[in-house]
Amino acid sequence: MSIRKAAALALSDLRIKNPLVHFITNYVTVNDVANAALAIGASPVMADALEEAADITSLSGALVLNIGTLNSRTIASMTAAGKRAGQLGLPVVLDPVGAGASAFRTETAAALLSVLNIAVLRGNLSEIRCVAGFAAAAKGVDAAEADEGADGAAAARAAAEKYGCVAAVTGAVDVISDGKRVVRIQNGHPLMKKVTGTGCMAAGLIGAFAGAGAGAFTAAVAGVASMGIAGELGFEKAGALGTGSYRAALLDALSRLDADLFLERAKLHEA
Amino acid sequence: MSIRKAAALALSDLRIKNPLVHFITNYVTVNDVANAALAIGASPVMADALEEAADITSLSGALVLNIGTLNSRTIASMTAAGKRAGQLGLPVVLDPVGAGASAFRTETAAALLSVLNIAVLRGNLSEIRCVAGFAAAAKGVDAAEADEGADGAAAARAAAEKYGCVAAVTGAVDVISDGKRVVRIQNGHPLMKKVTGTGCMAAGLIGAFAGAGAGAFTAAVAGVASMGIAGELGFEKAGALGTGSYRAALLDALSRLDADLFLERAKLHEA
Amino acid sequence: MSIRKAAALALSDLRIKNPLVHFITNYVTVNDVANAALAIGASPVMADALEEAADITSLSGALVLNIGTLNSRTIASMTAAGKRAGQLGLPVVLDPVGAGASAFRTETAAALLSVLNIAVLRGNLSEIRCVAGFAAAAKGVDAAEADEGADGAAAARAAAEKYGCVAAVTGAVDVISDGKRVVRIQNGHPLMKKVTGTGCMAAGLIGAFAGAGAGAFTAAVAGVASMGIAGELGFEKAGALGTGSYRAALLDALSRLDADLFLERAKLHEA
Repeated sequence: MSIRKAAALALSDLRIKNPLVHFITNYVTVNDVANAALAIGASPVMADALEEAADITSLSGALVLNIGTLNSRTIASMTAAGKRAGQLGLPVVLDPVGAGASAFRTETAAALLSVLNIAVLRGNLSEIRCVAGFAAAAKGVDAAEADEGADGAAAARAAAEKYGCVAAVTGAVDVISDGKRVVRIQNGHPLMKKVTGTGCMAAGLIGAFAGAGAGAFTAAVAGVASMGIAGELGFEKAGALGTGSYRAALLDALSRLDADLFLERAKLHEA
Repeated sequence: MSIRKAAALALSDLRIKNPLVHFITNYVTVNDVANAALAIGASPVMADALEEAADITSLSGALVLNIGTLNSRTIASMTAAGKRAGQLGLPVVLDPVGAGASAFRTETAAALLSVLNIAVLRGNLSEIRCVAGFAAAAKGVDAAEADEGADGAAAARAAAEKYGCVAAVTGAVDVISDGKRVVRIQNGHPLMKKVTGTGCMAAGLIGAFAGAGAGAFTAAVAGVASMGIAGELGFEKAGALGTGSYRAALLDALSRLDADLFLERAKLHEA
Repeated sequence: MSIRKAAALALSDLRIKNPLVHFITNYVTVNDVANAALAIGASPVMADALEEAADITSLSGALVLNIGTLNSRTIASMTAAGKRAGQLGLPVVLDPVGAGASAFRTETAAALLSVLNIAVLRGNLSEIRCVAGFAAAAKGVDAAEADEGADGAAAARAAAEKYGCVAAVTGAVDVISDGKRVVRIQNGHPLMKKVTGTGCMAAGLIGAFAGAGAGAFTAAVAGVASMGIAGELGFEKAGALGTGSYRAALLDALSRLDADLFLERAKLHEA
């Protein structure tokens, strides 16, 4: 079966299974991430206290870790939850927001990748280059212009090999690799960069697909492509109005996306 | 006076009095809760530091505690704020988000209910069954399907009797009880479950009504019914667009709700 | 050059430079603040851990501190980030949310103003009166009615002189002063008070302008006027729909604002 069909089927499956997905994520975009997870068919639960993190993971189909507003308290919870996921064989999605922008973020991302069994790593090109060990020049939580010419496929492949995971580099063209296969996704719209959280939402969607039982590669492709398609559909509806309306339209599109529309819109190219 | 008229009058009163309401609430839905409180006519203040929690409560007309993203720091603040509210005779609304989903949440909800004088308890069926001492099967922060057949009125009545409070079970049909009286509310729309925070917003609205001086039972009915009516009006305006537009339409409807529209739309049945 | 033209030019400049701006801000309105900063042309990064606060500031063009949900952990980070900004000569914007509402907020605002070199102070009339040392009667995080008759220009001038900064008092009429000059801004709409975070967003916009190199006075005028113009344009588009749509329309307007529209709409009066 092609990755295209596999991803579309995963979407149908996700909407039927409505998996519980545990998020330890940043407080900037958490509301949009929860609404995106609900829109695509998952049941998100946000819980970051050490006293319950592992317990909540135990109830869930997948765990999503996002270091966008990390602190020492939540890092301990991410570690505990991630270890429990490992014991239970649950997929863990890591979004190393801002890796490269501070030593604290770079080291935390590296520590989580070294201690935990990460199924899918999702970041912009600067972040994935950073965790893959390439020279990278982050601009805060955005990809640096200096990195824009760099090869997303090389970064994704290197990160995937280094950590034995699937790596998703999102940007103008998204690239997903498990170290061997490479899929490029040409959905999305530049206006997505003007709404905070579209990357976090993509990671959340990957967690939703993984939580419903899709394999890591399929989950990564389906999650990133779904976000990209929503970015296009949202732009068609509301892009001309401005970024406030566009933000709502992104969620609208996710909530109305189904397998047929996915098949019609997804621009996936296996290299 | 019927509860229906009492609730409608409470809405007029709330819009005139514009009470300050203190929230210690989760960071997932806090923005929507603040906007819902503003939309219905209150002036919300979010403050969760132990150094000021009781001081802020002292200035307020009501206190709303929501354990959606609880941690040891905020639990201490909830306790201090709740005790001050008790000393001052201010109504406290408790939303035991996810009670039953982890021991930490179940125990925290029980501890707050045991130490504080709670005026209104608002939760889904799994949460209220849990705190009432029934067997309950939460699904993260959502009601479990296994609980869906259970009797909301029995749970509400039991919780209300156990804690000497008003209990509001929100779901397909909402049930409010003070242990003796039972009111069923048949407003709302299933799409509300696809937007995070509609339960938290309902608890916030109850706090707004209580903060303006409505009694606990009237505040619970008025708050839950207002949210349900907004769910219907929002669906009529924007349900077909998707959940992003629906979320904005919920706030639109709350901000435009008045006593006449409340009387026209509220479907309340006293049992 | 008039302040009007200077502010319009600063907007063109901001959109070209796309500065990184570091925020340590409250979790209630953080998403709207990030989206407002993106909409006006900045690249926001939210980071509040002590382990990285100063490092993130070092990468940035400006720092925005907002005490809306302060706690001891984030106060330490604000102090560290603010000191680094001082060492590097970067502008710091302080939003003393709720100063006057609790001793903790009043003292924290005073401590930050005494330890750090603040370029722009932005608050409502109660907050600025409080930090300027006038008797003030806050209503939670809103300006108290008791303060409404007070002279915004006197408060702004006094705060500016006391701290050697630019002070912006936002309200029905906004007043900006550096202790000598006073500019009144008559943009905005009363409905802005019914959406949480419009004040925080204004402070964020000031940080965006300052991060792109505008002087403190120009940044304050440009940021506050931009928010006011967005409040008017948003009302024209969506005010009649309700506060949920209005909130999205505020961001829409910010994202579409350019120098020409700014010049056409800005109502600035130098006193």
